[in-house]
Amino acid sequence: MKINRMATRSIWLEPDGWSVGIFDQRRLPWRIEPIVLRDAEDAFHAIADMATRGAPLIGAVAAYGLALALRGDPSDAALERVAGRLFAARPTAVNLGWALGRMRAHLAPLAARDRAAAAYAEAGRICDEDAAMNQAIGRAGLPVIRQIARRKGGAPVNILTHCNAGWLATVDWGTATAPIYLAHDEGIALHVWVDETRPRNQGALTAFELAGHGVPHSYIVDNAGGLLMQQGQVDLVIVGTDRVTANGDVCNKIGTYLKALAARAHDIPFLVALPSSTYDPATPDGASVPIEERPADEVRCVTGVDETGAARRLAVTASDLRNPAFDITPAALVTGYLTDRGLVSGPRALAELM
Amino acid sequence: MKINRMATRSIWLEPDGWSVGIFDQRRLPWRIEPIVLRDAEDAFHAIADMATRGAPLIGAVAAYGLALALRGDPSDAALERVAGRLFAARPTAVNLGWALGRMRAHLAPLAARDRAAAAYAEAGRICDEDAAMNQAIGRAGLPVIRQIARRKGGAPVNILTHCNAGWLATVDWGTATAPIYLAHDEGIALHVWVDETRPRNQGALTAFELAGHGVPHSYIVDNAGGLLMQQGQVDLVIVGTDRVTANGDVCNKIGTYLKALAARAHDIPFLVALPSSTYDPATPDGASVPIEERPADEVRCVTGVDETGAARRLAVTASDLRNPAFDITPAALVTGYLTDRGLVSGPRALAELM
Repeated sequence: MKINRMATRSIWLEPDGWSVGIFDQRRLPWRIEPIVLRDAEDAFHAIADMATRGAPLIGAVAAYGLALALRGDPSDAALERVAGRLFAARPTAVNLGWALGRMRAHLAPLAARDRAAAAYAEAGRICDEDAAMNQAIGRAGLPVIRQIARRKGGAPVNILTHCNAGWLATVDWGTATAPIYLAHDEGIALHVWVDETRPRNQGALTAFELAGHGVPHSYIVDNAGGLLMQQGQVDLVIVGTDRVTANGDVCNKIGTYLKALAARAHDIPFLVALPSSTYDPATPDGASVPIEERPADEVRCVTGVDETGAARRLAVTASDLRNPAFDITPAALVTGYLTDRGLVSGPRALAELM
Repeated sequence: MKINRMATRSIWLEPDGWSVGIFDQRRLPWRIEPIVLRDAEDAFHAIADMATRGAPLIGAVAAYGLALALRGDPSDAALERVAGRLFAARPTAVNLGWALGRMRAHLAPLAARDRAAAAYAEAGRICDEDAAMNQAIGRAGLPVIRQIARRKGGAPVNILTHCNAGWLATVDWGTATAPIYLAHDEGIALHVWVDETRPRNQGALTAFELAGHGVPHSYIVDNAGGLLMQQGQVDLVIVGTDRVTANGDVCNKIGTYLKALAARAHDIPFLVALPSSTYDPATPDGASVPIEERPADEVRCVTGVDETGAARRLAVTASDLRNPAFDITPAALVTGYLTDRGLVSGPRALAELM
């Protein structure tokens, strides 16, 4: 089984018309194993156990989880109880609270007998809107890629990306990857440098996505980007983000900042792709963002497959260690923000657009 | 068995008086397994397969490899043939050429019957000189650490290092680590940030060394250094180098350049430790250094231990990939060169000192 974003989204209704399919992302890219969610507990565990990941996708799974519950019991009590339960699956995920809040606001005023159908419809809208938003981000970025392609006279445009801000983390398209898919689909020659993204190696997901879509790419260790830029082998950097603060600082996966510094040193455009919901005007700047320190085992261990194809975990160090999960790229290093409302330069223009 | 640099060197003559012992560094830090080299092919494979690594140590292994060959056949033809063969084991390592050139210059004028004994003596001198040279590098760097410690009023001096330029990579002391060991031994409070150094994770060796010597340290992914510098958690960067070109550019393990850029962005001193033999006046600049592309499996796979403690290799990606092994840090980003002849700033002062 091969999957790509032309053939499927990252979440779908099964042929029975009510149960919900997702991929078990803990098994990707090694195994493509769909999971069928049949009740809210299935959705809870998919989120809590990280079978599903990516802020937008988690929100969509929770919305459908609520719909699954309301099929059996559409009472006010069930709506409150199940929404609370799903919210507890990953309490720090902002989109989870956002999606559940939207579902409750939409469903609470309705008669109980109408709730299940309305919940499915609203969950579907959340998915459609997310896909449309990412496609809009893609359209905002496409002219940048077209321009570089023209300048290079048709030689492949080399784009570097860090982590997975692809369709597997959203409902479709992805944020950082949306312009890449659009450019590829219109026949622009591309090659993507995929940062491994230690400690969790989300680059393997990005490479898997690009392979499924036929986009030429090379997986590289996080250390390699500086040399490639020195050698003129990078034309553009596009990354996603977890939060953009009021002043335009970008909080993203650890290591993003090093690539931004290198891009600046070599005058390479550095673009940050974000849906409007990721802009956070309430936080003044990057220094105010608490940096999550994640479990030591993420650094200590690596997941992969052994020679028999079985998934395994290995310890790669026995040492004391530290595992900060994000860093801050100052607004001054960001060439442009790719949003669903267009491409803008500078924090002021971003604030006006949002 | 525990090893540290107070107890042993990284290369030694076996009790038989002629075969040569080294550690199989592919097994460290999980297993301490000496390898005995009995002929030049053993030495060739130890270098080519990276059982031994680190520019100075590679030079020492090659020198002894020549001695091992000359025991059996001390002819002119053998001297030339074996030197050529050993030189081909790792094309980027300038010390390999240096050590073999020195051996040939010393041995060629001698009568064939005297060559084997002279080769052992000269290889031994190369080792002794390397240990003395690294200790001198340590003395050159010690005042820098002392000064930061004074400024910090005794709070630990945070030093970041990349790859392994420790005693396991040299004959003793290490280059980048020599000042750290000397500072620790005189009671200066230190903490070392150890970059993992994908793809080969030589950071595990550095962490192993520091643990053996009792130096506080934290193992981090290569992506983390930028954030730590942003947060003021790095006072000094010290790295080793494989080659410093005439203009002061530094060829070192892939990823070094990204740390140099970040150090500059945060006004953190960036020191490059090098023995005189690593200075290469014949190569004008970093752009002239061929960058070794190493096998894809280094990136595709990771080595570690499973839950039973058995050493294993896992594939961490199934993708196309690229594996450049070195990058170039421009002289302009280097605060100072720590050499066995002292600490100097700037390529001109370095050229005069060398």
